[in-house]
Amino acid sequence: MPTNTFLEEEIYSQPKVLSSLLEWELERVEGITGEIPEFNYVVIAARGSSDHAATYAQYVWSSLAGFPVALATPSLYTLYQTPPRLDGALVVGVSQSGQSPDIVAVLEEGRRQGRPTLAITNAPDSPLANTADWVIPIHAGPERSVAATKTYTAQLLVMALLGALWSGSRTHLEEVKQIPAAVARALEISDEVSRRAERYRFMEQCVVIGRGFNYATAFELALKLKELTYVMATAYSSADFRHGPDTRPSTRACR
Amino acid sequence: MPTNTFLEEEIYSQPKVLSSLLEWELERVEGITGEIPEFNYVVIAARGSSDHAATYAQYVWSSLAGFPVALATPSLYTLYQTPPRLDGALVVGVSQSGQSPDIVAVLEEGRRQGRPTLAITNAPDSPLANTADWVIPIHAGPERSVAATKTYTAQLLVMALLGALWSGSRTHLEEVKQIPAAVARALEISDEVSRRAERYRFMEQCVVIGRGFNYATAFELALKLKELTYVMATAYSSADFRHGPDTRPSTRACR
Repeated sequence: MPTNTFLEEEIYSQPKVLSSLLEWELERVEGITGEIPEFNYVVIAARGSSDHAATYAQYVWSSLAGFPVALATPSLYTLYQTPPRLDGALVVGVSQSGQSPDIVAVLEEGRRQGRPTLAITNAPDSPLANTADWVIPIHAGPERSVAATKTYTAQLLVMALLGALWSGSRTHLEEVKQIPAAVARALEISDEVSRRAERYRFMEQCVVIGRGFNYATAFELALKLKELTYVMATAYSSADFRHGPDTRPSTRACR
Repeated sequence: MPTNTFLEEEIYSQPKVLSSLLEWELERVEGITGEIPEFNYVVIAARGSSDHAATYAQYVWSSLAGFPVALATPSLYTLYQTPPRLDGALVVGVSQSGQSPDIVAVLEEGRRQGRPTLAITNAPDSPLANTADWVIPIHAGPERSVAATKTYTAQLLVMALLGALWSGSRTHLEEVKQIPAAVARALEISDEVSRRAERYRFMEQCVVIGRGFNYATAFELALKLKELTYVMATAYSSADFRHGPDTRPSTRACR
């Protein structure tokens, strides 16, 4: 498929971005997981698409490595200036640009409290990277499209890689190494996806449903639809969606 | 104002529900805060409106008492059966009915790992209450309306009360005691609110914006609009809303 826009170009660059990321960073990230001192849980500060990558980390870090993940509430650190006590926490900041002052503020507070801090960013020279003890650069190259694609999936890959390394399982690590090829195969069905998308040409609102590992996907897809088509898209966990406007207790399975 | 529906009846019962809750439970809750052993952070499991009360707790417990709060991802406990290690955590379940199996599953896992567990519920005989080490009943009476009102604000009051007690500040505790009277004053402007609502009679979609302590309010109001009017309402933090479809880094203040 010809790539006509920055967006398409960045979408099609994903297999290469992801395989380069593994090639350049796998060993370093393995070293980082060995260096980070013991922690009980993780606090992640992020916004927008990066926050969705953090949501994915909630599932993959807990599921593979047993670490509970809390999503930070930056206003506690900035607006209210009442940051929580972070005893036992690893503090992680995720930001493509590394520029968001409130994400940097959470990492600064982590350092002030003597907690280990980790930045995951596309900008290894940014304020976020300069604040953290450890930095994992995602090497996605300049983001020229308004909607994040390659930077989001590169963040997801880092989350999966960290989960696999923390788990100590070679099987998980081998599965992570298959991701770039799997993304390339997913791109091969683009023509079919185009055809199916036609049905929704005049859609004005929609819900996007996902659960578990794909809870993050539901939020990211809803954001993409809003950013690129101005369709009012709302993400739901299938459990909450089934709950709906009816408040009867049900066997709500999972988020 | 005459109360014509279960919903209106429950809305107008709130000052009484809240003052009774304080009268009956303040001393017991103070005792509970003295009994719960030391913890570094809190994991809260909840769904729907109770999940919004948990979001409020993220702000009020951290801001008043310095405790970080993680919202549980129940599917890790149920669907994937890979619960995280809860070392250092107080595990809290919030459910009006106390019946949700996935919320109960999170508390059961907390007990299995030897962590302290607390239930906040309107049903002190429910599976949730029977699983927890400590129970705070909200005494809101039977919920007959489809949309939660009195049970939600009663949960919020418990969150504020716990925050105030954990803070050890008499000032905060006195402020919490003013809440029922403040809610009664808010209900006095109902006629004015009715008049202003007319402007939105034909609205088909909307966003609800809130930040910090009112981030939970934005989600709860959006849910109420969806439940009661079928308007497609989406909650946003003002920080993420400003972020919008434009990905330039900005001075995004707070969530």
